[in-house]
Order: sequence, then structure tokens, then C-alpha cells
Amino acid sequence: MIDFPDLADIVDSTPSKIVMLVADGLGGAPHPDTGKSELETAHIPNLNRLAKESAGGRTVPVLPGIAPGSGPGHLALFGYDPLKYFIGRGVLEALGIDVDLRKGSVAARGNFCTIDGSGLLTDRRAGRIPSDEARPLAELLNTITVPGAELEVLHVEGYRFVLVLRGQGLSEKLSETDPQRTGAAPMPVTALAPEARRTADAVNQFIAQVRELLSTQKRANMVLLRGFSQLPSFPAFGKAYKLNPAAIAAYPMYRGLAKIVGMRVIPGLHSFDEEVEALHRHYQEHDFFYLHYKYADAAGEDGDFAAKVKTLEELDAFIPRILELNPDVLIVAGDHATPSIMAAHGWQPVPVLLRSRLTKGEGTPAFNERACAAGSLGTFEAKYLMLLALSHAGKLQKYGP
Amino acid sequence: MIDFPDLADIVDSTPSKIVMLVADGLGGAPHPDTGKSELETAHIPNLNRLAKESAGGRTVPVLPGIAPGSGPGHLALFGYDPLKYFIGRGVLEALGIDVDLRKGSVAARGNFCTIDGSGLLTDRRAGRIPSDEARPLAELLNTITVPGAELEVLHVEGYRFVLVLRGQGLSEKLSETDPQRTGAAPMPVTALAPEARRTADAVNQFIAQVRELLSTQKRANMVLLRGFSQLPSFPAFGKAYKLNPAAIAAYPMYRGLAKIVGMRVIPGLHSFDEEVEALHRHYQEHDFFYLHYKYADAAGEDGDFAAKVKTLEELDAFIPRILELNPDVLIVAGDHATPSIMAAHGWQPVPVLLRSRLTKGEGTPAFNERACAAGSLGTFEAKYLMLLALSHAGKLQKYGP
Repeated sequence: MIDFPDLADIVDSTPSKIVMLVADGLGGAPHPDTGKSELETAHIPNLNRLAKESAGGRTVPVLPGIAPGSGPGHLALFGYDPLKYFIGRGVLEALGIDVDLRKGSVAARGNFCTIDGSGLLTDRRAGRIPSDEARPLAELLNTITVPGAELEVLHVEGYRFVLVLRGQGLSEKLSETDPQRTGAAPMPVTALAPEARRTADAVNQFIAQVRELLSTQKRANMVLLRGFSQLPSFPAFGKAYKLNPAAIAAYPMYRGLAKIVGMRVIPGLHSFDEEVEALHRHYQEHDFFYLHYKYADAAGEDGDFAAKVKTLEELDAFIPRILELNPDVLIVAGDHATPSIMAAHGWQPVPVLLRSRLTKGEGTPAFNERACAAGSLGTFEAKYLMLLALSHAGKLQKYGP
Repeated sequence: MIDFPDLADIVDSTPSKIVMLVADGLGGAPHPDTGKSELETAHIPNLNRLAKESAGGRTVPVLPGIAPGSGPGHLALFGYDPLKYFIGRGVLEALGIDVDLRKGSVAARGNFCTIDGSGLLTDRRAGRIPSDEARPLAELLNTITVPGAELEVLHVEGYRFVLVLRGQGLSEKLSETDPQRTGAAPMPVTALAPEARRTADAVNQFIAQVRELLSTQKRANMVLLRGFSQLPSFPAFGKAYKLNPAAIAAYPMYRGLAKIVGMRVIPGLHSFDEEVEALHRHYQEHDFFYLHYKYADAAGEDGDFAAKVKTLEELDAFIPRILELNPDVLIVAGDHATPSIMAAHGWQPVPVLLRSRLTKGEGTPAFNERACAAGSLGTFEAKYLMLLALSHAGKLQKYGP
């Protein structure tokens, strides 16, 4: 939670409802040919109409100049200081494929890689082998057993997989095996704390067996393991804000993030259409809804400006259905920018809209980076967005007499 | 360095080049007669053209309402939190006249002053005696010797001089002698920590001899000493950011500041013209260049609006020569505002431009306070500027998975 003294003393539980729509990778940057960003290019009449009765602003996900991963980007929107709360790479990768992680389990991100006859790395990604080739290899590794921990190897995509260790007394305090360059040998795992020795042994035995099992392979003849991590223990979102929160997300990673902060996760959703339907279906049961829209980020990461524009237009078409519910506070935010011209997550401030009974006269002219930069919310750290949500929902008393 | 966990983990050294042009006292304030600031009044076609392909914003040097000296102003631009990293007045004054300070030496800022027959201050600046009168007196004081430290007295300008103590076991933990008001007597130096006793003795013996030597003077018959300080030990800029930085500055104080953060200082420069030439000459040797333009600050401090406008126009004429190098990231920033209407350093946010391959479509309409306030970078603490520089240069990976 954000550093606010005695937040619990000024938060009230009330019947008002907050919907936070998070469009992944929402923010963009102007195209050099047109001078217009994806949002400025898109035909988004519903979002622009919403802007006219919303307060506009921009969120800085972490700090100026810092491009966040999905973990820090979302934690900030939920009010968790992304520099204080951290989710490891292994855990996030496991959440992304819906692995049921329990407290204490250790997850690592795995890469298939290529080593030469002397055991030195020649390709850290095994020539980016396709999923078809990698999946059976992951299944083969999944047969490995070692004393002291139960192992699971799950293919993710292409050369990537997840290794999960389950059992008693495991620790995430392990060094990584990736030397981060070719020409060097994969390193053994070392325990970074005494309590991690047994886990390190288990992982090293796993690696020894991997080397044997893959020795006849041409490309994927070894693995690299990074980001050993356990499920973190964060203060519960619902308790801190006195909310009864629900997460509505079709993609596993975002359900996982919501679970980490203790939201109820609505299961069985496969599209944004189903998400919006779920929002309607469960609207009476909760007072806070995190609604995740994935597609803008994917198009931005592909560097496809036109495709990202299209995903924003598709999102726009859903806005009337969300507005039918007329939530007391409706927020449209992004976890980070994914400018198509970068084809990657960006550090740019992300446009945000907040509509409540107090904002009907705001008149933010449109929903895009430029209009929101001039909006009444200003440019602020994303970790404060929840305080604005609570205040606009009438759930936050004044601070101090 | 800024408080960012494990910055080293996400910074990469790459061939891309960053040029940070710091126009001293760049920012201004609107003239009451015209409603236009110095930048808005100046004819600066090159900077305005640059703005159109740059992201614009404003830096807050320290905190809103805090006018910084050159030390904090520059440290912030280099990414050092100016509230955590401090350079003493004595050290900065010594750097300003190119004194070769070594680790352990103590420097103090000295004023000639006037005392009456009872030893009470009648003028804390000795009637602002001119350099011609003060210089021989400083040379006289330079003959003083005391046990336990080697002394040097160096004239600066007008009534100001620097006292440097060299030797083993010296300490900066000394009280100042200036009572900050007339009618009181200059105070003896006291040790603020046990390890400073010997240094305090040496300084007090120096002061006793000064009193004797100057007793026949009418105006400058005593001295006040302030800002006892030693060279600080800061984390090295180059190491923290994985850069190979060069400082290009004609004025000694700015070379000194750059030296404190561990930049390579290009010697033998006496004008901005020579500085720009040096930038060209050394361009292949470094990946970060701090280029200092002094004149805007001096005119602002004089309260001469028209003169400050002229210095900005002169700076503008150099922009094409800098652009010839086409650096991957070009930043035009200021260490602080020096509004002519204040005739002093100001606390106002300072306009900043950043041009990179990602900003071609930005279209900041002009380079001035108002246009930059609406720019996409927003208004942010100057200490984050380096993160933006690194990100735009492709040297900073995303934070967190």
C-alpha cells in the first residue's frame, strides 16, 4: 500500500461502486509522420464523449523515464508502491500460464539454450525454437525427479518454460544460471542465504539431469534459469481500502496479479466481451471491479501502429455497455505506455480518465495523451490513483482536523 | 544517485550518445509590461525548430518554491538528489576559482568586513570594496602561517576570498564566524565534533593574525568565514549510469562540479564557441557530454531582461553546430531559473527539451516556459532527467517483469 499514515482511519466502506478499466499498454507516442499518437489517430467517439464529463490526467507508472513490466505497472494502479512491492519473474511467468502457485512454492523462468561441445553457450535462446519443438522437450524435462522437492516443468511459448518447485522449506534466495552472454558456461545455482541450500541442491540436480536428457538435441541442448521467486505476501487490497474487489480478466497473468493482492477472481473468461458480460453479471456482488483489456499492449509490442489504433477502437465500442451500469466512479487507465514506435513498454505518462458525480463539468476535450496532459488531475504517480478513486466514490474522509 | 533499487541491473552501456546542454539560469518569468518571459521574447528560431521535434517539459530543480544554488541545480540534472547530496559553500567557492582541492582539504568562503573600535561589525562586506583593493589584502593574508595546517588565501572577487587548509586530520565540522548582523562581534570558530578541534585551533590562530595584519585598514579590517567544507565523496556518475562522461565548461565552478561526480573534464576552454568546438573534437571519445552555457544566468542575476534575451539569442545561434553531430539524445535544460525580474536565482520550473528518435512527432510548439509546461514530459523533478535521457538513448531496460 502507499505510504499514507493511518489510511484505515479515513477510509469508509459505502455502497458506491468503482470500476477501474485498465487498458494494457494504453499510452502511446506521436507517429513521426503524422504527429499523432495511437489514441489521437483512433476513432473513439465513446471515450471522447466520456472524457467530456470526466477529469483527465496522466499517471506516471513508476518514475519519469522508467518503463515498467506488467507487475509494477499494475501494482501501482492498485496503490502498491512499485518500488516497494515486487513480484519475481518466475512467479509472474507462472501466473501467466495459470500455474496454481501456493505459498512457499518457488518458480523460475526457464529458457532453452544451445551449448557447444565444451559446454559454452552459443545461443541463449536455442535459436528461438518454435513451440512445436520446445513443448515435447518441456514434457520430457517434466519427468525429472529429485529428492527434496516436487518438480514441474511447464512450456510457455517458443524457447520459454517455467520450472516450479513445491515442498517444505524451499527458498527463492538463489542465484541465476544465465551468464547473460554467449561464450560462457551456464552457471550452477548458488544459495544466497543458508536457508536456500537445499533448494539450490534440488535445482542443481535438476540441471544435471536436464543436461543428460537434452544431450542428443542439436539446438535446445541445455537450459538457463532466472528469476527464482515465491509468491509475495502483500497487504490485502480489500482490507486496506475496505472494498470487496473483483478482478475480471481473460489473461492468466492479470488474474494472477489480482490474486496476489487478494481480489476475488472471476473465472472462465476468454474475451473482453465475456469480461464485460461478467461485469454486468457480478455487478451487485462487489464494490470494486478491476476490468482488464489486453489487446492494446500486444499490438504496441508488435510495433504495429495501425493494429494498436484498431484495438483502441474496439475498446471504444464496449464503453456504452460499461456505462449502462453507471458506476459511481469509472476510471479508464493504463498500466504503462506501449508506444508502437518503440515496439516495447514505454516510460511515458499514461492518459487516465475518472468520471464521477463531481466531474460532469470537467470537459476534458478528448481521451488522448495531449488532452489528458492538460486535464485537471495533472500528471501524478499511478500509486495515488486509488486515493482519487476512493475520494470520488465518497469513501475517503478528510485527513486531519 | 536517485533512490532507485538496483539501477545497475537495468542500465546497459551502448554506443548511443547523449548531449546535455545546460543553459545556466535558463528559466525566466514573464515581464510585467509584456506578459512574456525572456525565452518568449527572444528570437530563437533554432531552439523553436528543435522544440517541434522534441518532447518538452519542465524540471523542478529541488522542490516547488526552492531556489537552488548552482551546486544543487547541477547535481539534480546529473541525477543526484539535491536533498541528499550536498557540496559545501567553501568547496564550491574554491572550485569556482580553480583551486586544486584534494580529499581532506578544508575550504571556507571568506568575506572582508569592517569592525569598529570595540570589535563590533559595522559592515559585513567591507563597503563592498573593489577587487583592486581586496586582492593585495588577500595576498597579505596568504603569508600567514599556523601550526597544524598549510594555509592558502585566494582572492575571488570584490570583498570575497577563499581560505584553504591543507594537511592531515582536518575536519569541516566547524561553526561559522559570521553573526549575520552588524552590531555583533565576529565569532570564534568552534569545533562541532571532537575530531575538528585541531582544525578549529588553526582557523582561530589564522583569524587572530588577520586581525593584527588588517588593523591599520579603514574598511577591510577583519574577515568573516563561512561554509567550512571538504570535497564530498559521491557515487561516480559514469559508474552509476555505465557512461563515459565528459564535461565541457569554460567556467571553473562547473568543471569542479563535474569533477566531483567523476566526469572527465576537458581543459583549456574559455568561451562557449570553444566549448562547442571541443564537443566536436571529443565527440568520438565519450557517450555523454555535459555542455555548459553560462551567460543567461549572469544577465538574469543582473536583472537585465534585455541582456538575458540577448544571451538566449546567442545560444540559439550555436544550436545548428550542435545538431550537426546528431546525437541520439539531445537535451536542452537549465540548472535553475534566473528570472530577470528577480535579479536572482528562482524556484520556477525550468523548461527542458529532449530530442531522440522517439520524439520526432511530438511537436512542442516553441521553447519557452508556457509551451514546455504543456509538453509531453510534464513537470517533473530534475533528478529524474537522467532516467529519461538513458531511456531515450536505449540504455535502460524495463523495470520488473
